[in-house]
Order: sequence, then C-alpha cells, then structure tokens
Amino acid sequence: MLRKAAKTWHFSMNGQRSLARVRVVLCRPSHPGNIGAAARAMKTMGLSRLYLVRPRAFPHPDADARAAAATDVLNNAIVCDGLAPALEGTLLAAAMTARRRELTLTVRTPREAASELLAAAGMGDVALVFGSESSGLDNTELALCQIPVTIPANPEYASLNLANAVQILSYELRLAAQDAPLPVAADQNLAPFEDVERFHAHLEQVMTDSGFLDPHHPGRLIARLRRLFGRARLEREEVNILRGLLNSLTKKVDRNTRVF
Amino acid sequence: MLRKAAKTWHFSMNGQRSLARVRVVLCRPSHPGNIGAAARAMKTMGLSRLYLVRPRAFPHPDADARAAAATDVLNNAIVCDGLAPALEGTLLAAAMTARRRELTLTVRTPREAASELLAAAGMGDVALVFGSESSGLDNTELALCQIPVTIPANPEYASLNLANAVQILSYELRLAAQDAPLPVAADQNLAPFEDVERFHAHLEQVMTDSGFLDPHHPGRLIARLRRLFGRARLEREEVNILRGLLNSLTKKVDRNTRVF
Repeated sequence: MLRKAAKTWHFSMNGQRSLARVRVVLCRPSHPGNIGAAARAMKTMGLSRLYLVRPRAFPHPDADARAAAATDVLNNAIVCDGLAPALEGTLLAAAMTARRRELTLTVRTPREAASELLAAAGMGDVALVFGSESSGLDNTELALCQIPVTIPANPEYASLNLANAVQILSYELRLAAQDAPLPVAADQNLAPFEDVERFHAHLEQVMTDSGFLDPHHPGRLIARLRRLFGRARLEREEVNILRGLLNSLTKKVDRNTRVF
Repeated sequence: MLRKAAKTWHFSMNGQRSLARVRVVLCRPSHPGNIGAAARAMKTMGLSRLYLVRPRAFPHPDADARAAAATDVLNNAIVCDGLAPALEGTLLAAAMTARRRELTLTVRTPREAASELLAAAGMGDVALVFGSESSGLDNTELALCQIPVTIPANPEYASLNLANAVQILSYELRLAAQDAPLPVAADQNLAPFEDVERFHAHLEQVMTDSGFLDPHHPGRLIARLRRLFGRARLEREEVNILRGLLNSLTKKVDRNTRVF
C-alpha cells in the first residue's frame, strides 16, 4: 500500500510538474470545433496550456461545445499573432509534420519526441506545435522549432484530425511522464527560445553586412544554419559565446574596412 | 536500400494482414459525428473494419462529414443488433473501460492490449470494443470480451472523446504492427467467440439443471467463471473437452438420479 501511494505521489509531483510545462500551440486553426476538441484531448491527459496563433474564429460556441468539460483550458488559452511569441521562454519545441522535407532534421516518432520534451521540461517550458488543418506548418514556422515529429500513419491516408493528433501526442507525453517520473538532472542549461532567435537575427545581420548572405537570394543558407543549431540545442552560455564571437568579428570587419 | 525495402515489405505484408483482421466495434454510439470521426481515425492508422452495435443514427450526414475521406470505412460498416453477433468469429476481444470493476481481469494499457491483439491477429479476427459516449460498456458487454483496457488519463478528467479513444488504440495497433512484423507462430489454436459462448451457455445450463446455480439468484458465479475462462483464452480443443465433460457429467447426474 505504501509503495503504491509513493508511486502515485511521484507521478503527481514530478510528472504533473513536467506536464504543466508543456504548451500546446495550434497555428492558424480554421475550425473552432477543433480548438475545443484539442482542449478536451489535452485535459484528458493532464495538459492545460493552450496557445492559439491567429485562430480564424475564437472564442466560438463550437469550441465550447467540443471542449465538453475542458472549457477551463479554452478560457485560459493565450492568443498570439505569430508562432514566435507563443514560443517565447520555451527551451524546446516539437513541430508536427506529415511531409518529409528536403532539409529536415531527424524526424522523431511521437514516443521519441515525448521523451525528449519531458526531459527538457525538467528545466523549463517546452512546446508541441501543430499546423493548420489544411496545410500544416509553413517553413517559417518549422524553422522556429527544433525537433520535427511525424505520427506513423497509413501512407494511403495520413490525414489525422487536428484534435486527434493532439490526443496522440498528449497521450505519449502522459506515458512519458509516468515512465520517467524522476526529475531530470539540470546539467544542460538550455537557452530559451528568444535568446536563440536573437542569435539567429544577429547572425543573419552579420552575414548580410559582410556580403556572405544576399538577403534577396538567401538560398538555403539560413535554413541550413537553423538546422545545425536546432540539432545542437544551444545552451545559454553557448549563445553568449556565439554572439560575442559575432560582435568581435563584426568589429574586425569594421576595423579591416577602416584599414583598407 | 534493399534492407529498407525488405522492411517496408514486411510491414505491408504481415502488418497490413494483421491490421486487416482487427474489427473496431462501437456499442450504442449516440452521436453519428463520432462514428464518422472514428472511421477517419481508423483509416489514418490502416484499420478498415467498423462494426456498429445499435447506433442511434446511422447512416447520417454528420457521420459522413466527420469521416472526411474515410467514407469507404462507413460504407462498409456492419450494423449489428448486439455485441455477440459483432464478435462472431473473433479469437480475442479487448474492451475499453474507464472504471475499475470489482471482478475485473488484469487491466491492460493500450500498448499491452495492442501487442496481445496483434499476436492473436496472426491466427484470426480480433476486436476492439468501445462503449457508448455516456455510459461506456455495460457488464453484459464486458463479459463477452477477454481483456479490459484502460487508457491512462488525467484522474480528474478522464473523459476522452470516443473517436479520440479509437485514435489512440488504432495508433498503438499500427505501432505494434510495425514493431512485430513477423507472423506469430500459430501454436495456439484459439477457439472462436461463438464456440466459447456455446460452452458458457452449456455450462450455465448444466449448473442450473444440477441446482448448483439458482438462475433467479445467480450471484457472481457466472461472472467469475467467465473471468476464469476469459483469462485462460480457451483453445478449440479445450472447448471440445470441456463440453464433452459437461455432457458426460450430465449423463452421470441423470444416471445417478435414475439410480436413487
């Protein structure tokens, strides 16, 4: 009896703390009913933090109806005008994608992604990012996320309903929280989203100023660099180092320019 | 390249063959929209055989609308007037249940159930059985299934939408089909549902005739016996043996009666 009670306590303390750090971000959802159904799916698995990026209609009676007893999740939803603000403060974001793209990182299964997200949730906020019903996430949105996730599906018909995709990922997160209830050692001090984005903006500026990047014909350069740093999962200290390096190089270019 | 092709082929041959043996049975669904959404959830994971036990409204435009491109699953759905006819010919049936009941068998997680069902699907048809949206499966329906399954959920709000529950179980079946693509050794010749039911009817009759069971006050006797044989997973030969035994005992009782 005591053993069982202790196990339950472990889940309620560490598992719930980790799940409370998971944001579910729906980008440009078209149907308010799907927003409500997603809220319900989240709540059944113990998730509560819903972010909506430019929803076509919200609040909406259809959302409330499909949410059933999860209207609290809807009422606390945060509406954003872009994906970047929704990811502010996150350490890791997983993007749902059905298609394989030329420049993808290693695509994760929901199970693998859940395990990685939960590990990062031991240190701070993480996000599950879903695209619109019709077209999924666009490349700009994908570029803001570090790990792509594909739900295994029937190759002849892989079109999951949005809320059902949310259900599967939320379910895997709950299982991961049960399987690994102990807090993750915070030996990696991951940089938050906005720090990484400031670094990318800085890098792009430096590349443009130096002529390395033609902003009118960027090609795949930025995407490749984003892939590299996304895979590396930058720590705070590393971002500081990289930005310091960029500053020092910029000064050098300036000095050189002055010299010549 | 060849290795990869072989792996894909394995899934398409053995995995698909196993998934084709899975019936999804919805008992007394209230909302036709949920039937359509369940059909879509099934098809995204490669399942196609839908059985509907006394649906409140079917066919229905709401079902078609929510099925999206899975109307073929709806069109091929089989409507039954009870759970028993829907299970005819199955070797193993898993019942979704949110509640723990006094007389439960060992409750499986969706992952465990998927693995057991897939193993049995190597030998014949299997079923996933879902109850109505409002009240789940009743005890009579549960008694017809061999393994109970509970989806891990938030204890404060465990009310998954019906189609979302179908999505999770279908997803786990697809993963199991991918993980264990090799055909299961058919070393166990499981008895089909109707043979087991005929045995139970026979047993009940014998117990009533002998006075061991008072049909007006059956208590938990039948439920306990069903649990026992459900857990054992009777083989064809065993059913024959048990029924032969019942026949011989009945004759003995008759003879004894005659003697005294």
